[in-house]
Amino acid sequence: MELAIAQPADFHVHLRQGALSELVVPHVRKGGFSTAYVMPNLKPPITSTDQALAYKAALEKIEPNVEFLMSLYLSPELTPDEIRKAKQAGIVGVKSYPRGVTTNSDGGIESYEAYYPVFEAMQEVDMVLNLHGEIPSDSAHASLFSLFSFNNIHVLNAEPSFLPHLHKIHSTFPRLRIVLEHATTRAAVEAVKACGDTVACTITVHHLELTVDDWAGQSWNFCKPVAKYPDDRQALRDIVKEGHPRFFLGSDSAPHPPHNKSVSTPSCGCAAGIYTSPILLPLTAHVLEAFGALDRLEDFVSTFGRKFYKIPANGNKVLLTRAAHEAIFSIPEEGYTLTDESVIPFWAGRRINWTLSE
Amino acid sequence: MELAIAQPADFHVHLRQGALSELVVPHVRKGGFSTAYVMPNLKPPITSTDQALAYKAALEKIEPNVEFLMSLYLSPELTPDEIRKAKQAGIVGVKSYPRGVTTNSDGGIESYEAYYPVFEAMQEVDMVLNLHGEIPSDSAHASLFSLFSFNNIHVLNAEPSFLPHLHKIHSTFPRLRIVLEHATTRAAVEAVKACGDTVACTITVHHLELTVDDWAGQSWNFCKPVAKYPDDRQALRDIVKEGHPRFFLGSDSAPHPPHNKSVSTPSCGCAAGIYTSPILLPLTAHVLEAFGALDRLEDFVSTFGRKFYKIPANGNKVLLTRAAHEAIFSIPEEGYTLTDESVIPFWAGRRINWTLSE
Repeated sequence: MELAIAQPADFHVHLRQGALSELVVPHVRKGGFSTAYVMPNLKPPITSTDQALAYKAALEKIEPNVEFLMSLYLSPELTPDEIRKAKQAGIVGVKSYPRGVTTNSDGGIESYEAYYPVFEAMQEVDMVLNLHGEIPSDSAHASLFSLFSFNNIHVLNAEPSFLPHLHKIHSTFPRLRIVLEHATTRAAVEAVKACGDTVACTITVHHLELTVDDWAGQSWNFCKPVAKYPDDRQALRDIVKEGHPRFFLGSDSAPHPPHNKSVSTPSCGCAAGIYTSPILLPLTAHVLEAFGALDRLEDFVSTFGRKFYKIPANGNKVLLTRAAHEAIFSIPEEGYTLTDESVIPFWAGRRINWTLSE
Repeated sequence: MELAIAQPADFHVHLRQGALSELVVPHVRKGGFSTAYVMPNLKPPITSTDQALAYKAALEKIEPNVEFLMSLYLSPELTPDEIRKAKQAGIVGVKSYPRGVTTNSDGGIESYEAYYPVFEAMQEVDMVLNLHGEIPSDSAHASLFSLFSFNNIHVLNAEPSFLPHLHKIHSTFPRLRIVLEHATTRAAVEAVKACGDTVACTITVHHLELTVDDWAGQSWNFCKPVAKYPDDRQALRDIVKEGHPRFFLGSDSAPHPPHNKSVSTPSCGCAAGIYTSPILLPLTAHVLEAFGALDRLEDFVSTFGRKFYKIPANGNKVLLTRAAHEAIFSIPEEGYTLTDESVIPFWAGRRINWTLSE
């Protein structure tokens, strides 16, 4: 059995910088994708058009055969003028990170009202606002946040607690295209469904697979937002199976060197992130098939996202064969090494029932 | 400032077997305790009086100056006759583990009704029933459990979902002394409060400190039951601060070799358990003081538990001085080594504001 998928597009991917970037950028194509919407949370973050274009050029130098769609990091440096400049330069969107919730989000935002002039300009020129939809936990930075001063906020309710902000931005800027990124909860699915056609939602393949039990004691399955309860995973699976056109793949594939994912002592901190790029299309087919949604694969990985982002496919098809293979354990393949120049993908060493055809 | 505490008693501790036991048993006294209620989840589990007495003798050989209170592991081998024999031999209680929820619980129970004759005998001879109060997660063994066939069960709601079983056993055996072990949720606190005087509850010092955010990506803070939400921790702190006489310390101190707590690859499993024995009394003083409950220390670590268990103190006092020290990082102290013959305690290397006086 073979499936032909119209040019898949990953609408949320982390391609890093430096040596790690050299290692992981080619994995976009290795995983079956030739369009990638690139997140801007570098050190320093990508806050200007010029930085985004330089980053794009660096990525194209590593992999000329991928279409890199670029984003800016929402921060006080971003002005309505810069938005217009970015639009002219082909930059697709602006990503908002609440401060402190994930990798390289220390410069993230504390309040949205301050950015309304930026949102106004984005709406006017038709750029996309990408929301990392989590409230920081109580114990971290809650007191710093005027808008975000809740009690009892933790990694499990951080996303549902954010949803009123989504609704408020959407009702204030109804024509602004907004993507709630990497939704993990039934509440988020319902919230996006309840919005108008300008609000969409990405879903990762790992959140279609994992629940809280999988990252309890297993740092390699730890990402932000964390995988939630079985009922939440069911809601994600159901919306994909239903084929709702505003829900599509954004892998949030996020490579970290093994020593940042391992936990050896009580004082270690494990980095949040799950790396799926090198196996993305076969794994997505495998996971969708397992919950009876294989017929939605092309919609989920290509059609729906491209339509929302207005990025048409190029007419090429990627072929998947229903032939099992063992997911790559470590990259480079010579073995598991605790160096900065290797990554261990999600699903390492496990069977995937679909394989990309050459 | 100095505090004199009437002979502290830890009403829930794991002392293991073999080399690990030799290492950790002396830590009971090192942590300020001379009475320890010992859990029976060894390999094989302690299911008979003879096994329990042999285990007790082995522990006393390592540390003659601790009073070891012994328990049996609830399993089909346990009969009413064996209960009467155990009582005669001075065994204090019987521990129930739902199958598969924590370390060495593979032989745990699947249904309580089958044990009603055992509970009847325990009530008659006045032995204590200790409940690990969690329903196994969906994804694990749910289908095996006639009583436990719920949907959407995961590590965060596993305890609240168990509480109807507590109420059912208590209402069926109102004179049976029951301890809900290592409560982690507001729901559990409320459930125990709502029971009669024969139902008590242990609380660990780490659950007074941690929330879900602390074990997200940090396997050394992973234990079962997992630490819950900030609001749940508040409920635990409040009941200790209130000085409710049916809530007292059971440390659930559970040593694992470092390689079982570390996570180096995606295929590693981290063992559930937090080790507090060597710092238990100073840390409990430190933690209680931090939320304004220092005046409840003696009640929490000695008076309340001893009264419920009917195990009087011997008249000796343990002295604590308000002098900061750095918590021991690794035992043996020569440094952090990934061997079976070392342990890394909770709070490793952090400041504790109280120190045991010699």
